[in-house]
Amino acid sequence: MNRKWWGWGDSNKGDEIESHPELFEFLKKQLNLSADARYPCVDADQVTLPESRLSKELLGEMMDICAPGMVCVGAISRLTHSAGMGYKDLLRIRRGVLPDYVDAVVCPESEEEVLRLLRLCEGSSVQVIPYGGGSSVVGSFEVFRKDSQGVVSMDMGLMGRLVRVDTVSLTATFEAGVTGPDLESQLAAHGLTLGHFPQSFEYSTLGGWIATRSAGSSSNVYGSIERMVLSLRVATPKGIIEPVTVPRSAAGPDLRELFLGSEGTLGVITQATLAVRRAPPVRDFSSYLFKSFEDGLSSVRELVQGGLHSTTLRLSDVNETNSFYHSKGEAVAASSKMKEAVGLWLVSKRGLSFEDGSLLIAICEGDAGQVESDRARVKSACRSHHGFGLGSSPAEAWLESRFEQPYLRDSLVSHGVMVDTLETATVWSNVGRLHDAVAIAITTELEKRGRSALVMCHLSHMYPTGSSLYFTYMAAQEPGRELQEWEAVKEAASMAIVSNGGTITHHHGVGSEHSKWMLAEDGEQGISALEAVKASLDPKGIMNPGKLLPNRESKSA
Amino acid sequence: MNRKWWGWGDSNKGDEIESHPELFEFLKKQLNLSADARYPCVDADQVTLPESRLSKELLGEMMDICAPGMVCVGAISRLTHSAGMGYKDLLRIRRGVLPDYVDAVVCPESEEEVLRLLRLCEGSSVQVIPYGGGSSVVGSFEVFRKDSQGVVSMDMGLMGRLVRVDTVSLTATFEAGVTGPDLESQLAAHGLTLGHFPQSFEYSTLGGWIATRSAGSSSNVYGSIERMVLSLRVATPKGIIEPVTVPRSAAGPDLRELFLGSEGTLGVITQATLAVRRAPPVRDFSSYLFKSFEDGLSSVRELVQGGLHSTTLRLSDVNETNSFYHSKGEAVAASSKMKEAVGLWLVSKRGLSFEDGSLLIAICEGDAGQVESDRARVKSACRSHHGFGLGSSPAEAWLESRFEQPYLRDSLVSHGVMVDTLETATVWSNVGRLHDAVAIAITTELEKRGRSALVMCHLSHMYPTGSSLYFTYMAAQEPGRELQEWEAVKEAASMAIVSNGGTITHHHGVGSEHSKWMLAEDGEQGISALEAVKASLDPKGIMNPGKLLPNRESKSA
Repeated sequence: MNRKWWGWGDSNKGDEIESHPELFEFLKKQLNLSADARYPCVDADQVTLPESRLSKELLGEMMDICAPGMVCVGAISRLTHSAGMGYKDLLRIRRGVLPDYVDAVVCPESEEEVLRLLRLCEGSSVQVIPYGGGSSVVGSFEVFRKDSQGVVSMDMGLMGRLVRVDTVSLTATFEAGVTGPDLESQLAAHGLTLGHFPQSFEYSTLGGWIATRSAGSSSNVYGSIERMVLSLRVATPKGIIEPVTVPRSAAGPDLRELFLGSEGTLGVITQATLAVRRAPPVRDFSSYLFKSFEDGLSSVRELVQGGLHSTTLRLSDVNETNSFYHSKGEAVAASSKMKEAVGLWLVSKRGLSFEDGSLLIAICEGDAGQVESDRARVKSACRSHHGFGLGSSPAEAWLESRFEQPYLRDSLVSHGVMVDTLETATVWSNVGRLHDAVAIAITTELEKRGRSALVMCHLSHMYPTGSSLYFTYMAAQEPGRELQEWEAVKEAASMAIVSNGGTITHHHGVGSEHSKWMLAEDGEQGISALEAVKASLDPKGIMNPGKLLPNRESKSA
Repeated sequence: MNRKWWGWGDSNKGDEIESHPELFEFLKKQLNLSADARYPCVDADQVTLPESRLSKELLGEMMDICAPGMVCVGAISRLTHSAGMGYKDLLRIRRGVLPDYVDAVVCPESEEEVLRLLRLCEGSSVQVIPYGGGSSVVGSFEVFRKDSQGVVSMDMGLMGRLVRVDTVSLTATFEAGVTGPDLESQLAAHGLTLGHFPQSFEYSTLGGWIATRSAGSSSNVYGSIERMVLSLRVATPKGIIEPVTVPRSAAGPDLRELFLGSEGTLGVITQATLAVRRAPPVRDFSSYLFKSFEDGLSSVRELVQGGLHSTTLRLSDVNETNSFYHSKGEAVAASSKMKEAVGLWLVSKRGLSFEDGSLLIAICEGDAGQVESDRARVKSACRSHHGFGLGSSPAEAWLESRFEQPYLRDSLVSHGVMVDTLETATVWSNVGRLHDAVAIAITTELEKRGRSALVMCHLSHMYPTGSSLYFTYMAAQEPGRELQEWEAVKEAASMAIVSNGGTITHHHGVGSEHSKWMLAEDGEQGISALEAVKASLDPKGIMNPGKLLPNRESKSA
């Protein structure tokens, strides 16, 4: 596999918008996209970086610690390790120019090497940015250099071993650099699964999931990452942290929870012991179309509060349903003949349509009896809110292509489309208000700039008390002002979130892009407490500066 | 209701060991209990305390803040607020003498009063010990006075209001001083329940549950307290902490988790928003007897890992099963005739007996279909490990009397019995080892002192990866050396726990009795991080000193 340097994933793979003619036409119309709009991407050999600021001596000392070849200063390596996969990152990296770059990429092979590197960096005032799969969309790898300090990226890619499996306790211990597919295939050999499938699954790592409080598409039943981590080891500049490995404890504040979401600002997560489960034998797909988002909302809330064990429920609002229909029309109706028949039937008999309906995808996993019972509950709840059963195809189509979206995004950016996602969560009674507030904020900001916006949303992580809301928005880019335009939209959307009872992030994390909103999240004293933790474990402040915590002039200490 | 000052609960209630003749005989034999052994309890009017060290001016200022009569300096009030309900507390309080006493008990009526009191205390270097229901068994209320500082107990009993209910999101916000029964009855009026039933339920409070990371007997499905707290408000000496109220967030470390288990060392929890649920319509009881604890272990592990939704599973080891049989013999067999018949049948046909068997109690709650399916799963798993169904009576008997044990304890102490409980948790593969190590440690320590020990254990909070272990031990007291004897046993048991892969507490909390074991739990750097949080929110160290964090001379800062 050869990783693409200027965008998402495997450079031999791709998903061009041209191969979705119906969707492309739909977007052109919706966004007033000009046919010849293009956003450039330079050639790799045109990328030139300022020289590494690390001295030869220091690089030599790093080379002494690491295995041969595991300290890199090549331009593409330094470039790709200085940006993530957010829209802002894509805009910059495609031009081959970032505000600043790491001076080297170091790849430790063991926790001992991690610790030695951290001590060396602390002693030399070199900043360290931990790097897992590089899939952050919130600016987690951006370089914020203090004075003339050096900056290194610590790539955990060599630390992906399975340390041990306990099939009695259903736990597995992995090194933190393991990617999703590697982790799942090693567990599959024991008939086990972790069940954590974020959209970044193919490239993101266990350490990254923990550091960013990741949530996967099966979180409804399997839980988000914090429910899976029994224990972890973290190498901090002050030494190793490792709480006891027990299923639950009342011995004070839960130390694990300080590192879940720590985003590399406290240390480097080196390994974790995870609660795993036996791979579910049966999987069932179903899909329903509702007249309105509100009807869909009532159904899923009823289901989740009633204790449904469906691993995935994904409810799209009207705009996303419409767009899904244009991109997966075939799947929706399984065949064009059926599509026509169903389409007509829907319109004429039920007043339903894909243009202003709300699509629900449900995937139930478990043993046969559990799945049968869950399937029946889904059916009953959907029917009671006038949901129309669409069979398994839409759900299967979604599952099949769930990791493909970022490839299509690359193609859209190439065609001059501004395309980004953002997400939040709130309690059920506030979902409608927050949904509308964010959609309006984005649309208004773009309309002010003379752009037609397409704002879509779905709920995909649900709890008895509330749900996540995941927004995708698109517009034609404003040539030459792509970045400023994006910043304005992001600001408006973030403000709408925090002013309307949402959290600034349900599962993308904070990085540098959300850090200023952390005060709204945790308050003045809450942030002081987190700052105190950082000062205790990373007194020289070398760990991933500029991320997570807001930049405050005067701390209340 | 008139609260007993020298022991547990309502002074008009009680449970004398004499009213359980079979159990009493059993204990006399097991413990070599002398018939005339007695542990004294002084009369209330014999209790005399040193004078309050608070100045008249300071008391006056406190009175100005609180409602009339809400600053108490009476002897019994100061005495009862300076001890909890552990065996050590009982030994001391029954004699009316503690090492030290709070100087006053203040009862705020609002968060504003809490804050004003905290500021006054901080300004006057007065320590504050938050007090909920007073049911701590780990020394959470012991006074550790620094120099001549004053010490006040902040009793949250007046702050028990229901603030709001959101029946769409299934959340309820309560003030932190609400007791279990008051909370549940206010929720019941809305058809809701929290489902948190620790043994202390009748007297403990929401704030206490949060501060100590409490777990109730229905935790298998409803979760422990940390799963129920959507958000909270904490008054610290530096101001109010209140994270956003959302079902889940990835915005950095989970701030709530710093206060869950904070044990009054960071501030006073004033209110919390809780995930509640609709009261389950159906409840089913079943009970099984296994040939061995190991057979029972295999059954419950299989059930929990298979996703059983039973709210309560309680598996007793051989000693506890035997003791349960002697205390609840009637219930076990439902009638003496049946008892005889069943007893004979068991012994002759299956090689089973209550003398060396293992009893499982299972309670399934939910809608009829769920309960029916869960009941069938329990039956099938138990049968496959040769469990013999005992019907509903033992489970019903347990549920009926689950809050009564502490009354019986008072009677046992009166009769010169050393009786204490301690608890831990570990992963499934380590349950057997930890069980034996703790039992042997306690037995050995008591035998060294010439005592016959009865050590019993049950598993009552189960997770896919492991379980809690709850030990009750008894022995005849060593007159005049009751406290030293208890300290030696506690030390031996704690050492066995931390050396054998257990946590020092699964749900009792840390208090002053487990604080020195926190280093084993969280490590040097982990404790430094928690100390840093405390220094940030309580810079003068007035909040519940001597609790939770180990007493360290040289901190690594």
